[in-house]
Amino acid sequence: MFSAMKYSSEASRLSLINQLKLPFHEEWVECDSVEKVAECIETMVVRGAPAIGCSAAYGFAIDASRNEQKWPDYKSRFQTVSEMLANSRPTAVNLFYAIEKFKNLSETFDEQTDAPKIKSAFDDLAQELFQDDLRTCQAIGDNGADQSQTAKVNVLTHCNTGSLACAGYGTALGVIRSLHKQGKLGKVYMDETRPYLQGSRLTAFELMKDGIDATLICDSTAAYLMQKGEIDWVVLGADRICANGDTANKIGTYSVAVNARYHEVEFYVAAPFSTFDMGLRSGADIPIEQRDKKEVTEVFGKPVALPETKVYNPSFDVTPNELITGIITEKGVLKPPYLESISEVQA
Amino acid sequence: MFSAMKYSSEASRLSLINQLKLPFHEEWVECDSVEKVAECIETMVVRGAPAIGCSAAYGFAIDASRNEQKWPDYKSRFQTVSEMLANSRPTAVNLFYAIEKFKNLSETFDEQTDAPKIKSAFDDLAQELFQDDLRTCQAIGDNGADQSQTAKVNVLTHCNTGSLACAGYGTALGVIRSLHKQGKLGKVYMDETRPYLQGSRLTAFELMKDGIDATLICDSTAAYLMQKGEIDWVVLGADRICANGDTANKIGTYSVAVNARYHEVEFYVAAPFSTFDMGLRSGADIPIEQRDKKEVTEVFGKPVALPETKVYNPSFDVTPNELITGIITEKGVLKPPYLESISEVQA
Repeated sequence: MFSAMKYSSEASRLSLINQLKLPFHEEWVECDSVEKVAECIETMVVRGAPAIGCSAAYGFAIDASRNEQKWPDYKSRFQTVSEMLANSRPTAVNLFYAIEKFKNLSETFDEQTDAPKIKSAFDDLAQELFQDDLRTCQAIGDNGADQSQTAKVNVLTHCNTGSLACAGYGTALGVIRSLHKQGKLGKVYMDETRPYLQGSRLTAFELMKDGIDATLICDSTAAYLMQKGEIDWVVLGADRICANGDTANKIGTYSVAVNARYHEVEFYVAAPFSTFDMGLRSGADIPIEQRDKKEVTEVFGKPVALPETKVYNPSFDVTPNELITGIITEKGVLKPPYLESISEVQA
Repeated sequence: MFSAMKYSSEASRLSLINQLKLPFHEEWVECDSVEKVAECIETMVVRGAPAIGCSAAYGFAIDASRNEQKWPDYKSRFQTVSEMLANSRPTAVNLFYAIEKFKNLSETFDEQTDAPKIKSAFDDLAQELFQDDLRTCQAIGDNGADQSQTAKVNVLTHCNTGSLACAGYGTALGVIRSLHKQGKLGKVYMDETRPYLQGSRLTAFELMKDGIDATLICDSTAAYLMQKGEIDWVVLGADRICANGDTANKIGTYSVAVNARYHEVEFYVAAPFSTFDMGLRSGADIPIEQRDKKEVTEVFGKPVALPETKVYNPSFDVTPNELITGIITEKGVLKPPYLESISEVQA
């Protein structure tokens, strides 16, 4: 199975596929220091909140492997490392989750905790966080595939929620991988996902890597495929899910959701429990980030519209809970009414 | 008002804006011979069926202006010119309409018809066809704008159906121009229209030329704007309209139509009567052309997906009549049931 992140415990080295060069160059960046890991997060060599969290965890482990001091003397360096990682991508939730985990672990250390002990504990925790994320994705994938009542399911996905964004396997792409594994996968269609083209660049690349047959379409072609009866399920990821099930995800998700409802296509959100933000009562509470107009007037440096053109380029949209057939999580598939089903599993 | 086509009767010269260079270079191509006109049609310097028809008509006039012979001696050259133009874009309906008009006119000539008479008759017919197309667009625009009951209408359009595709003014963009003229135009949003980006390249350019404030969006953002209540009308063109009102238009039109219905947004098709094909009973009779996968894997030569990626790239989709609020024509706005309203006006 394709993975975009490899860690060697012996060498204390993290290898990251350079996502900035995909899909045309498969270049691996070797990180032998936490500084290099932070740089990879900052420059988007690695992207996707779970993948960033895992990278940061390995950053702690790599730095501890270079240390020869007992805890009291390493402590200030640990603080520096935490800050360096926190500053590398201040908006990534999983990054702060990882930092918190290492902070909690470090609080169990005392004057007697020597360098090998710190190294071993940090290495274990990093690998545990990585394995947790991988298991979570595999559980999401299997829970999703188990939903299928039919022999073959034709699936449409949007954006990239795959190995490249996680420790591996992916969330929505995890469901596609599990359907494939169980012999239940029909056709796969991928939206190119304008403006940033995650579908063309990343999803098409990683499904090809795993030998899963998939077809790329322009975003606006999805409705036409549904009209022709070519799509059974939409499966895609989530950036944030509210307490009532309203889901913020990559721009274009809502358009697919409306079309899915009109054509009676099942619409699934696949996401780990860490994506739920119970402090958000509904989608109305989610701020929508506006992004650079150049993403629309240029395609990777190639101008396609005059630079003075006015552009509206929101990064996300919000799909209301009533358009969602189910939310596929590592703990099972939640169904409406979501206010109840989400709070039950949270409890 | 911006026009992409200028004809000088004195000089017998047609000036065409080079649409291949838009929006970055506003280059005019001067046509002093019918050979040059045919070359501009073939190489897509000029595009859009009505614009092609008008260009061909001027081609006849330009050739006649170079002639010094009486009709019997010019007749075989006229035949050559007709074939040259017919071969320049064999799929353009309006091209054959123009050729037919010149053929009919030539049948009124006799042995006595001299060169000045031919020149003057061809010049008049070319200008008449141009003016007819312009008047048709202006009538479509005004009929559309007259539909508005509110002070300000926010409009979304898709693809390019403007001055660049016609003698001038445009069909869907004609409605936007008339709303603007009547002081009824609110905000204008333009879909970029993947894969060929007619929205980014052409619609954005020509509305800017006319000083009409408009905002470019990714195709998948349209639904989100409707959700926010930002769109009152969708107005777009048609490639072919069936006897029952089913409409083939640029890929993505159907997705917008479904979203318009879901959000109770009015959905108008603006097209001249020449777009109706009464031989097609319904959308099921319309063949859908598949286009080169490179339009999706590359953006004007810039690769965005691996070349071996599988792609599905239909050129058009079909919007069923039940999703269409009205069809705006030069003879008025047709309303459902279309089988009746279309056949009434055809009669």
